[in-house]
Parts: sequence; C-alpha cells; structure tokens
Amino acid sequence: MKPEIEKMWESSYASRIAKLQSSIIREILKITQKPDVISFAGGLPAPEMFPIRAFEEAARYLLPREGQRMLQYSPTEGFPPLKEFLAEYMRRYDVPAEPSNVLPTNGSQQALDLVGKIFLEEGDAIITSRPTYLGAIQAWNAYNPRYLTVDMDDDGMIVEQIEDHLKREKVKFIYVLPNFHNPAGVTIPLERRKAIVELADKYNVFIVEDDPYGELRYEGEDIPPFITLRKERVIYLSTFSKTLAPGLRLGWITAPEFVMKKFIQAKQGADLHTGTLVQYLAWDLCDRGILRSHVKKIREVYKRRRDLMLSEMDKHFPKDGVKWTRPQGGLFLWVILPEHVDTGKLLERAVEMKVAYVPGYAFYPDGGGKNTLRLNFSNAKEENIVLGIERLGRLFKEAIG
Amino acid sequence: MKPEIEKMWESSYASRIAKLQSSIIREILKITQKPDVISFAGGLPAPEMFPIRAFEEAARYLLPREGQRMLQYSPTEGFPPLKEFLAEYMRRYDVPAEPSNVLPTNGSQQALDLVGKIFLEEGDAIITSRPTYLGAIQAWNAYNPRYLTVDMDDDGMIVEQIEDHLKREKVKFIYVLPNFHNPAGVTIPLERRKAIVELADKYNVFIVEDDPYGELRYEGEDIPPFITLRKERVIYLSTFSKTLAPGLRLGWITAPEFVMKKFIQAKQGADLHTGTLVQYLAWDLCDRGILRSHVKKIREVYKRRRDLMLSEMDKHFPKDGVKWTRPQGGLFLWVILPEHVDTGKLLERAVEMKVAYVPGYAFYPDGGGKNTLRLNFSNAKEENIVLGIERLGRLFKEAIG
Repeated sequence: MKPEIEKMWESSYASRIAKLQSSIIREILKITQKPDVISFAGGLPAPEMFPIRAFEEAARYLLPREGQRMLQYSPTEGFPPLKEFLAEYMRRYDVPAEPSNVLPTNGSQQALDLVGKIFLEEGDAIITSRPTYLGAIQAWNAYNPRYLTVDMDDDGMIVEQIEDHLKREKVKFIYVLPNFHNPAGVTIPLERRKAIVELADKYNVFIVEDDPYGELRYEGEDIPPFITLRKERVIYLSTFSKTLAPGLRLGWITAPEFVMKKFIQAKQGADLHTGTLVQYLAWDLCDRGILRSHVKKIREVYKRRRDLMLSEMDKHFPKDGVKWTRPQGGLFLWVILPEHVDTGKLLERAVEMKVAYVPGYAFYPDGGGKNTLRLNFSNAKEENIVLGIERLGRLFKEAIG
Repeated sequence: MKPEIEKMWESSYASRIAKLQSSIIREILKITQKPDVISFAGGLPAPEMFPIRAFEEAARYLLPREGQRMLQYSPTEGFPPLKEFLAEYMRRYDVPAEPSNVLPTNGSQQALDLVGKIFLEEGDAIITSRPTYLGAIQAWNAYNPRYLTVDMDDDGMIVEQIEDHLKREKVKFIYVLPNFHNPAGVTIPLERRKAIVELADKYNVFIVEDDPYGELRYEGEDIPPFITLRKERVIYLSTFSKTLAPGLRLGWITAPEFVMKKFIQAKQGADLHTGTLVQYLAWDLCDRGILRSHVKKIREVYKRRRDLMLSEMDKHFPKDGVKWTRPQGGLFLWVILPEHVDTGKLLERAVEMKVAYVPGYAFYPDGGGKNTLRLNFSNAKEENIVLGIERLGRLFKEAIG
C-alpha cells in the first residue's frame, strides 16, 4: 500500500479506537492451543455436553413449519415467545419482569457494548471490582471511561471502598458480578448485596448486574439478584452461552421499560435485531423443558470437575503463600501466588511443561494482579485435570523456590 | 418509578444517544401493517422464496457431525471455510480478496455500525447521497457526524457536488451505494465510479461501498465495484440478507488487511463473534451451490414483479410532473411527485385506501424529499401489485388535483 494511503487510514481512526486491543485472553489462547498442552486458560463450556440432538430436532420440526418467519427480518424487540419465556424465567429469582423488560442480544457481550454506547461518555467514572470481567473492559474501552476499582474479599467487592469512590466522584454506575465472579470465583452474599443497593440509593447511581453463571450453582442456595432488590435501579444481563450453547450468540438484557427503549434504539442501529433463526431454536429448547433438564446435567458434570480440580490442587499445590478460591458455582478458580511470582512470565515455562492458564493481570483494568491466575474447570476432561494440576503444582513449587 | 430515579436515568445517557431515534420506517411499518393494507413500504425479501429445505438439510447433516463446533465459541475473525468462500465469491467482481480481507458480521447493519465506531468522531464530515440508505444514518447518528449531502441524477451522485465538499472541508469518507440504490434505484456507471475514485485519490479520503443488492441485477451487465477499482481505499460491505435470508443476520466486510485488524478488535468488543451456527449453515448452502442457484431463481421472480409494477405504474400513475426510476435491479422503485405534494401527510389517506409506501423524507439525512416516496416490489404478490398500484394511481391523481 502506498504510504500516503496508509497515513490516510491511520489518521482516520477515531480516538476511541486507540485504546482498543485484541483480548489478551484470545492472544494467550493462541499460544496455549499447541497440541499436548492441557489448557485451563479458556472459558468454554464443555462441548461434549451440548444438547446437539435437541437443536437438530428443533431445526427439523420448526423449519418446515415456521421457515418463512424464522428466516425473515424480525422486530428489534426480539421474538415474542422467547421474550415471554425469559420474563417467566426471570421470575424464578422473583424478578417481576414482563416481556417488555426483556431484550434478546447477541450474547452478553453485545449487552455490555450497548450499556457503553448508551451511557458512557469519555472520562465517565464507573466502579468495578479489581479484578473484573475482561469482556466488560473490552466493550467499554471503546467509550474511554475511567475505572474506579475496588478490592474484593471472600464476599466480593468491599463496600467501604465503593462508598469512598462514590463520595469523591460523580459515578455513572457500579458494575457487579453477583455469582461466581469471573475470574475471582466469589459470590456476593445477600447482606452485602443489600448494602451495595443502599449505596446506589444514597448516591443515586445505577447498577449493571452481569450474571452469566447464576444457573451454574453446585452447592448452597440461590441468592436474590440485585435486580430483585431494586428493580428500578438495575440493568441485569444474562446469556444462554453457559446454559445452552455460546455459538448461538444469544443473551438478554432485563431493564426498566423506559430504559429499555434506549437499548432498543441503540440495538436497531447496531444490527437491526438478533438472528430470528437462533431465537426460534433457543425458544423451542426452552419451551420443551430442555433448558431446565440440560442445566441439571451440566451442573453435575461441572461440579465433579470443580471438586476434582480442588482436591488435586490440595494434593499438589504448595501451601506456603498460595491461596485459591472454592467457588460455589461457575466455571473458574482463582489462584493467588506469593507477591514475587509473575504469572505472565511464568506462562512460557508452563507451556513448556504442557499446561496453561490465564495470567491474572489481564483482568485488572488499572494494573496489578501480576501474581494471580485463572483456571477453568468446565472445559477440562477429568484425566487432564489430574495431569494438568500435578504439572502446575510442580511449576509453582519451582517458581516459589 | 420514583422521580429522583427517573431523573438519574435521564441524566445518565451519553449525549450521543439524544440523536438516536427509532427507525421512521419501523414506525411506518407498524401503521401500514393493518389487515387488508397492500404494503409496498417494507424492504423485505419474498419469504415464499426462502431456501427453507436447504437450511433444514444443512441442519440435519451438520449438527450430528459438527455440532460440538457449531455450538461453541469461535474466532472473531469468522468461520474459516465461510471466509474462504466469501473471498472466492468476491473474485467474481475481480476483487483480489483473501480470507484475511473478509470479516463476517451480523448483517450489513453491524458493518455500518463498526465503520462508525472505528472512524467517526463527533462532528466528522462524511459525504452521502441525498436521499441515502436509512440504516446507515441510523448507525452513524450514534457517533454524531455531519452529513455533507450530494444530489443524484440518473447515474447516481453528482461528481461536481462531491468535489465541492472535498474542496471546502476535511472529509472522512464518501458513502456510496453502487448498485440499485436504496431508495433511489439508480446504478452508478463505470465512468462515474472511476471519477469518484479519482476524487478519493486526489483528496486522499476513503470510500465506504455498501452493496447489498449487487447480485440482484435483472438486466444489463455487472459493473466493477469501487473496491475493484481501488482496493486499498475502499471498505466494501455486503450481506446474505437479500440473497439467502435476512433472519440469519449474516453479512460481511471486505477491507485492506491492516484496516481489518481494527474491525476485528471493534467486533470483539461488540459481540465476540458472529454466531457459529449460522456461519456453518450459510457456508453449507454456499458450498453446495445453493446460493448461486437460489439467486438465479429470485432474480426471475423479482424481475417479473419489477416489470409488472412498472407497467402498472405506466397505466395508472398521472404523467404530469410525476417521475419514477426504472432500476436495473434491487428491490425498490423511487417516485417523485410534484413539489406541492407531501407524501408524509398523504400516507394517512393511502392507508385509508388500503395501500402503503415509505415517504421519501425518511431517507434525507438533512431534510427535504417531502414529495418523494419509495415502493418495494420484491415482497409483493403479483395480484397485489396490480391492485395496489391502481390505488396509488387514484391517490396521486387526487393529490395532484
């Protein structure tokens, strides 16, 4: 390409683009996808569990009957029967949602992007945990906000630190991952949820509640989500990616109806509507009760994998200065090594030893976390958990010295 | 909702959102979707033509064999076999595209949104025709650009007016609809394409070429697209929405490789990737040659509908001061009535007469076009074309007086 054309392109990018980067995780995944490497790096569901037959049945049944509608344009608001199911489904948590409060999106990632598009101006302050979900940072970096970060203990974000930020600055919203935090694995108990909602009331801000894993609880009781505690102040995001299949790209937003209007307008400009075909197929599985029975199945399998990984960690990981979470659900374990260990640098040696993880610094919107790492258990076969954790144990002993 | 909470939400929206509106067309469609109204308002493909059986076969064949991959996360870059097909497919226009130049998107609408996200800062000037495609305005309004508009003659955008803008202002890009312009129906001949490319060279700007209808040519010869004339200066958008089915939400971007990197980063933040399942299904139809044979079929049907609509217009429309386009392809006819007729106001009377269209003002980014309207012929059954055009003829005679 001629230099003046190259310069033209370079000078044409909007300034918001400067901050955009490829996901560190996706880059890491490329490194770790060598043959023979046992990778705990991804965040994928177990593909051997996908309800493939049910999708095939849905396609065979629906296409001949509903094909003209399944393949046509459809309303931005979403496929009405799916919206009805989702509104009903949210009621398991006592969320008083109507179909008009629910908007299907292309996975939760699009919902995060729409939140950014609708609310974030350059320099706006938002409160997140430290670490936090990488996809949210990636979506929002395009709108150049400032991240006010908050440490977590075993019960999630520390309330006093949230209030410190709210006192000092005009904040747009608080971003919470209520259940089985990605990457940290922790769940926020009811009392702390209430305290955070009260802070939102006191300082008159809203809450973005990101709950992709709520259904994947392996022990303990469901805790009411933030949206149940204060529905007029919460935008709630969830997805079928972890319960049915991520390849559909199908999630949803639940929000107060007049906020929903903005989401609908923004979504219309972003892609007109979520695919009609995938909405029909997903709805059919929901309607036939397959979502519910399938979630029961994957809960069992993932619980077994979590338990196995934890017991292997107990056996093989050094005890001195090494901590890890014991999450009640979700897909991830979070490991904290002694301060002097740099998990980013250590990854190279890990891959030599044919095992991989995600270095924790990737999840810190404003730096830090160098001595942390994330392990995924949902996508690992049991024999690989045994082998891989033993290798990590050797690696960490070597690194700690 | 309590007033202070409502105020909190209202004051939380980003300023870019103020300009967002629901598509006028979608609002109009609601009015015109009364029973018995013959609507030429939508822009929908004919659903009775959808290759439903081929999609069913694809699902039945692929899900048992490839289900684990079809339902899993997949690369932002797109499903490799589909990218290969698209690169090859673009070569019918002598576009020297490689798979790395091609990115699947959620319809062309997402491609338009990504163009806005990557390139448009508030106040940036872009050149569009007057009228222009409504979806582009809707996508880009979220980024608050300024529209420098240009009149069209029978050969599309008037080159001198483009240059006038380029002389006076720093322009980011020129937006062109090369074939069977929506709404105006016109096609830009090769000589004028070359002249526009030369202007882009001279003023060192790039071109966004939006070509959803290129395959739907009913007479005459294909004209090389802008991207063939100057591939390093053009972002080319197309879609399966008009050739296979819009309910898939599947389009693609073709661009120089190093620009493509930005699209991939922006798309990753926007929704991780386009649905794996729909990419597999669409690829299967492409690979089996169904795309090609299906396009031949719909060309015949749409040509017949266009011809019938034009001959009925010749019969029934008043001749004095009324003009319309005779497009060589696409889905739309464009009608210009005498200056004093307001097609927006006239729509109410049209709906009383059980016929509907889109008032042309909707397509003007900076006002005007009150005496114009758009008619869709692809989605109208032949008996309805006869009935509906007769009604419109009466309506226009009544309005012109």
